[in-house]
Formats: sequence, C-alpha cells, structure tokens
Amino acid sequence: MKFTISQIASLIQADIEGDAQRDIFQLTPIEAGQPGGITFLANPKYTPHLYTTQASAVIVSRDLVLQQPVNTTLLRVDNPYEAFTHLLETASEMMKRGRSGIEQPAFIADSAKVGKDVYVGAFAYISANVTIGDGVKIYPNTFIGEGVVIGDNTLIYPNVSIYYATQIGANCIIHAGASIGSDGFGFAPKEDGSYRKIPQLGQVVLQDHVEVGANTVIDRATMGTTLIQEGVKLDNLVQLAHNVEIGAHTVIAAQAGIAGSTKLGRNCMVGGQAGIVGHLTLADQTKIDAQSGVNRSIDTPGLAFRGSPIQAHRDQLRSEVMFRKLADMHMRLHDLELRMKELTEST
Amino acid sequence: MKFTISQIASLIQADIEGDAQRDIFQLTPIEAGQPGGITFLANPKYTPHLYTTQASAVIVSRDLVLQQPVNTTLLRVDNPYEAFTHLLETASEMMKRGRSGIEQPAFIADSAKVGKDVYVGAFAYISANVTIGDGVKIYPNTFIGEGVVIGDNTLIYPNVSIYYATQIGANCIIHAGASIGSDGFGFAPKEDGSYRKIPQLGQVVLQDHVEVGANTVIDRATMGTTLIQEGVKLDNLVQLAHNVEIGAHTVIAAQAGIAGSTKLGRNCMVGGQAGIVGHLTLADQTKIDAQSGVNRSIDTPGLAFRGSPIQAHRDQLRSEVMFRKLADMHMRLHDLELRMKELTEST
Amino acid sequence: MKFTISQIASLIQADIEGDAQRDIFQLTPIEAGQPGGITFLANPKYTPHLYTTQASAVIVSRDLVLQQPVNTTLLRVDNPYEAFTHLLETASEMMKRGRSGIEQPAFIADSAKVGKDVYVGAFAYISANVTIGDGVKIYPNTFIGEGVVIGDNTLIYPNVSIYYATQIGANCIIHAGASIGSDGFGFAPKEDGSYRKIPQLGQVVLQDHVEVGANTVIDRATMGTTLIQEGVKLDNLVQLAHNVEIGAHTVIAAQAGIAGSTKLGRNCMVGGQAGIVGHLTLADQTKIDAQSGVNRSIDTPGLAFRGSPIQAHRDQLRSEVMFRKLADMHMRLHDLELRMKELTEST
Repeated sequence: MKFTISQIASLIQADIEGDAQRDIFQLTPIEAGQPGGITFLANPKYTPHLYTTQASAVIVSRDLVLQQPVNTTLLRVDNPYEAFTHLLETASEMMKRGRSGIEQPAFIADSAKVGKDVYVGAFAYISANVTIGDGVKIYPNTFIGEGVVIGDNTLIYPNVSIYYATQIGANCIIHAGASIGSDGFGFAPKEDGSYRKIPQLGQVVLQDHVEVGANTVIDRATMGTTLIQEGVKLDNLVQLAHNVEIGAHTVIAAQAGIAGSTKLGRNCMVGGQAGIVGHLTLADQTKIDAQSGVNRSIDTPGLAFRGSPIQAHRDQLRSEVMFRKLADMHMRLHDLELRMKELTEST
Repeated sequence: MKFTISQIASLIQADIEGDAQRDIFQLTPIEAGQPGGITFLANPKYTPHLYTTQASAVIVSRDLVLQQPVNTTLLRVDNPYEAFTHLLETASEMMKRGRSGIEQPAFIADSAKVGKDVYVGAFAYISANVTIGDGVKIYPNTFIGEGVVIGDNTLIYPNVSIYYATQIGANCIIHAGASIGSDGFGFAPKEDGSYRKIPQLGQVVLQDHVEVGANTVIDRATMGTTLIQEGVKLDNLVQLAHNVEIGAHTVIAAQAGIAGSTKLGRNCMVGGQAGIVGHLTLADQTKIDAQSGVNRSIDTPGLAFRGSPIQAHRDQLRSEVMFRKLADMHMRLHDLELRMKELTEST
Repeated sequence: MKFTISQIASLIQADIEGDAQRDIFQLTPIEAGQPGGITFLANPKYTPHLYTTQASAVIVSRDLVLQQPVNTTLLRVDNPYEAFTHLLETASEMMKRGRSGIEQPAFIADSAKVGKDVYVGAFAYISANVTIGDGVKIYPNTFIGEGVVIGDNTLIYPNVSIYYATQIGANCIIHAGASIGSDGFGFAPKEDGSYRKIPQLGQVVLQDHVEVGANTVIDRATMGTTLIQEGVKLDNLVQLAHNVEIGAHTVIAAQAGIAGSTKLGRNCMVGGQAGIVGHLTLADQTKIDAQSGVNRSIDTPGLAFRGSPIQAHRDQLRSEVMFRKLADMHMRLHDLELRMKELTEST
C-alpha cells in the first residue's frame, strides 16, 4: 500500500504544513521514524523527536508551536492520537480486504456450502458438508474438516488445521498453524502397561469474536464440547485440553496451558506460561500471573493469584521476598541456636 | 454420520423403550444432552439427569426402575457403560475409515512406494524413496520427506512435516502441525562470538502405536537416532530434542520439554509444562509432576518427583507448605532475636 | 545417499584397511553403529567399542595399534575427528543441495521476483510483490505473504507461514511450522468488558544467518519492527512477542517466551521454558537458566540469573538449597520458641 500525504490528510481531515507529495507506506513510532513513514505526536515528552525524526510525516495538534524548523511534513488535526488510531484501523481494514475470490487449485468438496464475498486461497482444503459464511477468508494451505461451520467474516490464516465438526463463530481470527479439534489426550491403562486410546468424539465450539494465536492448540471434547465463549483472546502456543470451557472475554497469554475439563469464568486474565490443572473452576475476573501453577478452584470473583502452586497475589510476593532471604534466615537461625545453647549451658 | 435409534439398538443389542425413529448424530454426557444426542446412565448419582436430559436417547440398565416419566427414548442393556464404550469405539472406527483414495492434486514422487487401501489427501507431498504401508492415511497439506518409512495403518493429520529419513511404525497417530525430524539445536561458538551450525544428520524413529500431539516437535539426532519406543503417547506442543530416547508406554503431557540426549525409561509419566535438562537418565515408571524441572538422573524405578528443581514428591509438598509460611517464619525469627537480645542484656 | 567406502576414503584422504566395497548410507556414533554406518574413534575411552561395533567403517588415527581383530573397515587419517566433521559437513551440504527447480503445482504471483537456482516446492504459495534471492529453497506447503523479502541462500522448510511485509536475510534457516509476522497480542478493554483489537501494522525483520526452530512464533510489531539480529538462533516452540528485539548471536532454547517490547543484547543465552516479561532490557551476554522468570531489566553485561523471579545465579542456588531444608528450619524454629518460652518462664 502506498499513499501520498495529501490522500492521508483528506482521510483524517488534517491541514498540511510542508511537502504534500511525499509517498507514505508505513506507520511507525516517532522515535523510529524512517523515510516513507508517518507517525504522530500526542505525548509532550516525545516532542524532541519531532525535530530529529526521519519520518516523512508527523500528525500533530493544531495548536502545537514549533520551537525550531522540522524536516518532516506536519499534518495538523484536533486530536493526533485519535487521527492516528483512525489511520491504523483504516490501514488494517484495507489489509484484510486485500484477498478475495477462490484461487486455483483449491479443494472444495461438492457438498460444502460457501457464502458470498469469500476468499479461499490456493491449496486450501474444504471437506464435505462444510458451511462457510459470507465474507470469510481462508488462507492458502489451511485444512477445514468434515461438517465444520464457519461464521461470517471470520479470517483463517495459512497452515491452520480445523478438525471435523468444529463450529467457529462470526468475526473470529485464527492465526497460522493453529490446530482446533485435535483429539483430547485420553488413554486407559491396560494390564500389560500399555494404553488403550479413549475415542475423542466431542467437538470444539468457538463463539463470535474469538481470536486464536499462531500454533495454538484446542483439543476436541471426549464427549460434548470444548467451549470458547464470545470475545475470548488466545495468544500463541496456548494449549487448551479436552472439555475445557473459557468464559466470555477472557484473555490467555502465550504458552499458557489448561488441562482437561477445567472451566474459566468471564473476563479472566491468564499470564504467559501459566498452567492450570484439570477439573477446576475459576470464578469470573480471576487474574493469574505468568508462570503460575493453579492447582485448586477459585470461587470468589475478581481475585489475583501468583506462584506455583498459587497463593493470593500479595501473599506470594511476600513469600518470594523471603525466599531470597532464605540463606540469611538460615544463618540467623543457626546463630540463635548457638546463643540458646550458650544460655542454656550457662544457667 | 446419522443413525436411527433402532440402528443403534441393534448394534448394542438393546431393547427400545420409546420412539425408535429419532435421528442420532452425537454422543454426549448425560448432563449436557441435546436433541440428536445419545448418552448413558451407569453411575446412580447421575440418575436425576435422566428425567431432565434433552438427549434423544439414553442407554440404561435393564433393571432400572423409573421414578417418573422420561422425555427420552431408553435403550435397555445389561451393562450401559460397556454398551456406550462399544458405541464410542464403533463411531471412532467409522470416522477413521471415512477417507480413502488418492485425491488430486497430490504430489507423489515416482520412486515412492505406496501400499494398499491408502488415503493421500489433496496437497499432500510424498518425496522420493518414501515407503508407505497398507491402510495409511495422510491428510491434506502434509509433507513427507525423502526416504521416510511409514508403517501400516498409521494416521497422519493435516499440516504435519516429516523430515527426511524418519521412520514411523505401524498404527501410529500424528496430529496436525507436528514436526518430526527437524534439526537438533546444535551450534559451536566461534572466536568472533558467532556460531557455526553443527550438521544434524541422524534420524527419528517412532515405533508402533505411538501418538504425537498437535504442534509437537521431535528433533532428529545429531548422529544416530532420536528414539520413541512402542506405545509412547505425546500430548500437544511437546518438545523432544536431538538424541532423546523415550521408553515404551511412557506418557508426556502438553508443553513438556526434554533436552538433548536424555533417556526416559518405560511407563514414565511426565506432567504438563515439565522440563528435563539434557544428558540425564530416568528409570522406568518415574513420575514427574506438572511444571517440574528435572536436573538430575533418577536411578530407582517407580518414584515420584515434583518442583523446580525436583525433590521427592513428598519432600517438595512439605517445602511448598513451608514456603507459604515464610513471612510468618521470618516474623517469628525476628521475634526470637529480640527476645534473645533482651535475655542476653538482662543477664 | 549411498557411497562406497573407497569414495569416502578419497574424500577424507584416508588409507583403507579392510573391505573397500561396502555401502555407506549413514553417519553414526561408534556405540550405536549399524551395518551401513560410518563412525570415528577420537577419544581413547571409546576404543573398546571399536572391537564390537556393527558399523561398516570406522575412521581412526594412522597410529592406532589394534589390540585384537576388528569386523569393520578402518579408514586411517591424521585427525579422525576433523575427518569425520568434514564428512558431516559434506553430507549436510549435499542434503541441502538436493532440491531444485519449481515444482508443479506451486502458486507464484505474477508480481513476485524469484532469483536464480531457487527451489519452490509443490503447494508452496508466493504472494504478490515477494522478492526471493538466489539459491533460496522454499519447501512444499509453505506460505509467503505479500511483499516479503527473502535473502540469498535462505532455506524455508514445509508448512511455514510468513506474513506480509516480513524481511528475511540471507543464509537463514526457518524450520517446519514456524509462524513469522502473526499479529501481536494487543487488545484495548472496552467499557462493556469486551476487547477492541489494536491493529498490528508493523513488521518482522530477520537479519542474516538467523535460524528459527520448528513451530516457533515471532509476532509482527504493533508499529515499527520486531527485530532479530544477525546470527540469532531460536530453538523450537519459542514465542517472541510484538516489538521484541534480539541482539546478534543470542541463543534461545526451546519453549522460552519473551513478552512484548523487551530487548535482549548480543550473545545472550536463554534456557528452555524461560519467560521474560515485557518492556525490559537485558544487557549483552546475559545468561538466563531454564524455567527462569525474568521480571526486571539487567544493566550489567555478562551476568547469569536463575529462578522465577530471577536472582543472581549463585544466590538462587543458595535459596534453592535452603528451600529443600524448609521443613527442617521450621522445626528448628519451633524448637527454639519452646526453649525460649521455658527460659523466659524460668527467669
């Protein structure tokens, strides 16, 4: 994408101060501005960068008074931050709109129902009895299994694998390499020490506005449903086991893992690399710090936890402080013992 | 898949009580039953669900006496749990049997040998000198490198990458996005601070009945073999480094990682997110808890460990209890010091 | 690949002692030698293996004196270790050279520029405005997004996803299933508890000689650049969030994760499953142990850290020793309290 400064000025209703013909092809932070970039100045502490930036254009406030000449083109608006955000979202929309049509060769089973204004990339595979809503984009090399349903305007990036019978809502985003609907990890021990696989015949349901990070895995239920409610955001390399349920608008950071049948409430936050064992229930708005290990259910909403195994956030911080003093504590304990011995012997 | 209740009744030799013409297309838990679902009642504590379930059919014992009318169709058998398990396994078999033949376009090198009753999905890639056994299924968008050998009835899901010279046994299951045979992580430091790559020319061998989870990675050996013995089960997002060896029927949960050249015995269990450093040996039947960090070899079979770094399971639990009391211990220590000071000064 | 022993002898300038016509198709360690394998003997402690190895050939020193007859063919050279390393590197080069040309069907946009001596596998997807240097290899089922630039001799394995505008240097290796340029994890909370996605419009830049492990994820910057400098080595299943910067020749082991905007210096080493929170700066040559949790910036170069949260390496080791003694310390503390009580009451 490439625009002139005057095109951008018209989009954000800005007055131009400087060269209006420069080409813009990148949005950048002000301190890392490069030729071809546009940035903005909202926070006064970044003002010095205005005089040194290499960016081709900077969005500034109408009432900014220059202290010295600038090398960049100024775009004056009422609210630079809002104008820049508007620009970001417009650019983002244009990116998404970029791909359309059915590329060849793609594999689309005869029984699949494909909506309007859909993109299906080359080497994408749509199995039998799949239903794809309007405005859906399926990138190249992605696999959609039998009977999968995909809601309107959902975006699925390349090399994603959606196993059979998965249901995906509208306006979801699934990033590259994610696997949704793979078998839960269930095995029954046999007498000879080997294992018998327990068939995993449930499904995965993603409600609307869910985002799934790159290479994240969501296993299908043994029976019933692994359920990801509306607005949930999963970062990269997250593991959700069979029959997990995640409440609406809960956010889970990268490399966190949740074991089988655990249920998280709404608006929870789970930090990176945290682990939650199976068959627990966590109340709404629970906060779990990064690298924590959750080994018990949380009944009261809105509390924060930390540590492996978890304690209340504040208690864990105190234990951590003391942990760093352990060698000192041990010496003091030893010292007390010596003095106690002296005392006892002297009496 | 869709069946009538009478078809299912004949499969599990049940007597039908109620509407035999309903369609069944899902197996569900009794508490989450929906129209179109079939479930079972074996544990008396779930009996109340029988009168409220939305499931279209419930498998019950022949001698169950109803306390009130039900809305569902009953299928009476001698052993409801066994009947339902039989149904699960039948359904699972049918799922697996679903795909067959070579879809177009697939890439199959002239020198590849492909067995009977094989499925090769569209956009699957079979390199030169590959040998594929009978009944193997290779899903779309999966890559099989040069000289790979795949045993009979092995199932490889989409977007899997099998690097050259890997050997996979019979009756294995490889889930979506797994990478098998990628280079081990080996680099020799050079004098200028940069690294020289150490060629990774060994291979990976999976014996029979191994299951590999979605997006799990198994690196090839530097030289020799990264060996996964018979019946090993690996969950999703697991990392096995170069020259690792995993003994038969060992089970490794999601996001666990095992560093280079470490050898695990038979029938070990490794919890989720656990890590094991390189060049160790763990005895048979060792149990490692989730999030543990194993930094030493285990010589005695059948022991359980926990913590990072690990202690014996029981010792670690005691340390964890004390860790939560650390702030209290510190106060008590401080208090003792004050009293000791008083005592000493008073004498 | 298959060679005769005499071909190999000529490559490493060895004198042959024994059958020169045997076929060699594998390089192996001496203790795991199999027919068809070649190995070497440099370390005297492995000498006993020489008389029992099944390997078809062993590279040994010219001045080695046999204590008993051997079943293998000997290749006598001045420096067995160097000769074997030369063999390894030659074999590795030949592997890499193996694939060439554009296979069909591949998808290459008309506007893409493709260099000389390139390999593009079947089902690889090259988007519009991509630039691919000379000698690049792109394996099957890999996706290259719009405007991506790939430097000379870079090797990209199967099922990789490179999002739009990513820049990859020369002589890089990207392993199977890696995702580069996926959206950073950025969401702004709305008043109703749901989240608004913050557009992620920056890019990822990999400089020359970078290696990226299988199923590793590198997110694009929100604005600006996620920067991986020259010679960085990333193991499998690593997570690098938006706007992370990794200094030249830094090495990051498997399953480690680095949160948004954190900057690592040059020649750092990060252990497996370690986590680093966002917005930190780590000095050059910082060493972080496996499973550590880094929650603060490190200003002084060359220091080692361990623990979650981190302490100086040595302090953490002492705390860990004391942690294992905690139950004992608690008993000693309790005992002191009893004796103090006795003392106080007796005075």
